[in-house]
Amino acid sequence: MRSKIISIGDELLIGQIVNTNAAFLGEKLFSIGIPAEKVIVIGDEEKILLNELKDSVTNYDVTIITGGLGPTHDDITKPTLVKFFEDELITDEKVLEHVKNIFASRNIAMPEVNAGQALVPKNSEVIWNHSGTAPGIWIEKHNKIIIAMPGVPHEMKAMINEILLSKICTKFESKLNEVHIQKTLLTTGLGESTLNEKLGDIKELIGDSKLAFLPSTEGVRLRINVTSDSKKDAEQKLDEIESKIRIKAGDYIYGINNESMEFVIGDLLRCNKQTLSIAESCTGGEISSRIVSVAGSSDYYFGGVCSYSNKEKVKILRVKEEILEKFGAVSKETAIEMAEGVRKLMDTDFALSTTGIAGPTGGSAEKAVGLVWIGFSSKSKSYAVNFLFGEKRDIIIGRASMRALDILRRELLGLEIKY
Amino acid sequence: MRSKIISIGDELLIGQIVNTNAAFLGEKLFSIGIPAEKVIVIGDEEKILLNELKDSVTNYDVTIITGGLGPTHDDITKPTLVKFFEDELITDEKVLEHVKNIFASRNIAMPEVNAGQALVPKNSEVIWNHSGTAPGIWIEKHNKIIIAMPGVPHEMKAMINEILLSKICTKFESKLNEVHIQKTLLTTGLGESTLNEKLGDIKELIGDSKLAFLPSTEGVRLRINVTSDSKKDAEQKLDEIESKIRIKAGDYIYGINNESMEFVIGDLLRCNKQTLSIAESCTGGEISSRIVSVAGSSDYYFGGVCSYSNKEKVKILRVKEEILEKFGAVSKETAIEMAEGVRKLMDTDFALSTTGIAGPTGGSAEKAVGLVWIGFSSKSKSYAVNFLFGEKRDIIIGRASMRALDILRRELLGLEIKY
Repeated sequence: MRSKIISIGDELLIGQIVNTNAAFLGEKLFSIGIPAEKVIVIGDEEKILLNELKDSVTNYDVTIITGGLGPTHDDITKPTLVKFFEDELITDEKVLEHVKNIFASRNIAMPEVNAGQALVPKNSEVIWNHSGTAPGIWIEKHNKIIIAMPGVPHEMKAMINEILLSKICTKFESKLNEVHIQKTLLTTGLGESTLNEKLGDIKELIGDSKLAFLPSTEGVRLRINVTSDSKKDAEQKLDEIESKIRIKAGDYIYGINNESMEFVIGDLLRCNKQTLSIAESCTGGEISSRIVSVAGSSDYYFGGVCSYSNKEKVKILRVKEEILEKFGAVSKETAIEMAEGVRKLMDTDFALSTTGIAGPTGGSAEKAVGLVWIGFSSKSKSYAVNFLFGEKRDIIIGRASMRALDILRRELLGLEIKY
Repeated sequence: MRSKIISIGDELLIGQIVNTNAAFLGEKLFSIGIPAEKVIVIGDEEKILLNELKDSVTNYDVTIITGGLGPTHDDITKPTLVKFFEDELITDEKVLEHVKNIFASRNIAMPEVNAGQALVPKNSEVIWNHSGTAPGIWIEKHNKIIIAMPGVPHEMKAMINEILLSKICTKFESKLNEVHIQKTLLTTGLGESTLNEKLGDIKELIGDSKLAFLPSTEGVRLRINVTSDSKKDAEQKLDEIESKIRIKAGDYIYGINNESMEFVIGDLLRCNKQTLSIAESCTGGEISSRIVSVAGSSDYYFGGVCSYSNKEKVKILRVKEEILEKFGAVSKETAIEMAEGVRKLMDTDFALSTTGIAGPTGGSAEKAVGLVWIGFSSKSKSYAVNFLFGEKRDIIIGRASMRALDILRRELLGLEIKY
């Protein structure tokens, strides 16, 4: 079973809008076992759409088109569909009434042009659009399905969720004998290639399943895709792969799927009834804002100090002036004093601190741009570790924040602090 | 002149990642007069990529490929390119050295697999990737250009901005006879439709040029696109449109193009030799981290306190306990005391504060989720204003941060505080 997504609209091609519709549809099609093999974005041009329709009926079981269904002259989807299928457009009276009602409910007279929205190909089925004026269209030809929907995200999503997904599944019931499942393991602390080496022979690890490395500046996501003829077997295969990966790189995995590091840490702190405070210099509040992005973080987070100048480090965090003078603001000693200072100030179980050179200026031969000291303090110990996080300011700040949180995660789980 | 974008990666097809790269590239290609006619998203499958390459060299002047350039088993771009062009992969010694240096600068031994990143097609030109290990590749064949780049957004963007756009323009100089220019005016404080009303008759405003409203949760960007046969004429048209818009909605425009609010504010503070501190409750460090995201912010930003619990508000910011008891933490009085408290603590010219209910819980009939008080304090005055920022936690935090910064911008420019 193969599917294809066609997104129509000049605004997508010139980057005015990011194609979130295709991402939504891709996820839905994958979830029912008809993954998209291709996404095509094209403008409002008949010729190109005709070519794509030819490709669709030749090669794909399901094609979903979004956009180009509006009532204006540059909306080409319906005229092109009837041209391609040698069909004609006719007025659907029920749709026309629905369009008129929508305008009436807004106390607006329906502009003449909107009557065109009730035109549908004669040999098609209308897919009801509860939330807007443009109906969806379902065309079947030689067991291939072509679906056209408006590009307005909430209208399109409602039609998919309420009608189309189950309609597609019913149509292909006999052929949908494969189950597709996936899980993403979230790692941080290792680069893509080091993680790859740690996992060893990938083929051996995953067999005929798929494993994708999805690197970002703060970590690598490992996405496992398993296909099987039964859900039970698929789940078992996935569990086995996950176990093997966890044996090899388990302590670098901080969460699964859409969990964030700050969410994982929040859960640990709440379960342990422990509290946190943060002193940030080079990360400037980024760690604090990540912690607070999690609903309910006031249960365990007391607050933070962004001591961006030395004066605040001394005045608020009680970093000793002689430490700043002797070792500098970006030093192991200052990082430790900052973490201890904020922990005592706010009376929390744990504290994190950061001090570093986020650049682009301020680096030296001895202390390069990208150097960050991360401090940790609890009632029983305080220490600091240093890292080189590259050269770009936003990436340095992001990586330092992620690493600081990972140090806390490792402390909370009793894992070794190693990078 | 026609161009095409190919995005490679299963994660795009199954909707795990939204294709922001294609939007970025679409905008850039449009800006140099070689608009993308098609965007294709495909997985890591050689056969499909081979078909697309055939289409590319037949129909498109420029094809830009992103993704599939990493060092792991599922990266197909380079092998497929050499297969299609009947070429071979050779090691580029300079790239190999660069890759080794990147690992060395992070104090990590280069894994064997990464040597593969220095492999490039023999008949290609290497496009330097300053920020990552995978180089870009430029192939010319019969006056058609194929460019391959890594899919990591910041690496890809740097290569486009620093090298590729001007290289493409130089290559096709003689054929590019229309000038496309654009400018984006950044507004905040008005919704899309209110802004639209304020601007009045759009046709009258822009003539045959284009004006797009690009709304986000924190503001509306107005993008003006002008096409003409001379640069001078295009610039004059654009200036006229911008002036007309500024007359109608000037004080809501805080910047242009890629400027951020925090960048604009940083410039104002630096020019005035004035300083800032911030006390955050519901925004949790977000405003501080935005300020610090700007290079050189230590010139004017002394620091911030995230007083997430009442205790810290009293202990560090010296908010009076009777104020907290009488009016509550989310109140005009507390917001003012927080702003005054942090300004005095850090001895700055200005201070901002936030206190509110970011939800999803904690709201009441009297104080709903989304209610935020924003405080401002200078040596001559202190006040607080309140807003209702909706229901979603991240949107509330984002909007409150943007609005607080806009209040500071208006104070710095002597504009009225009106919303």
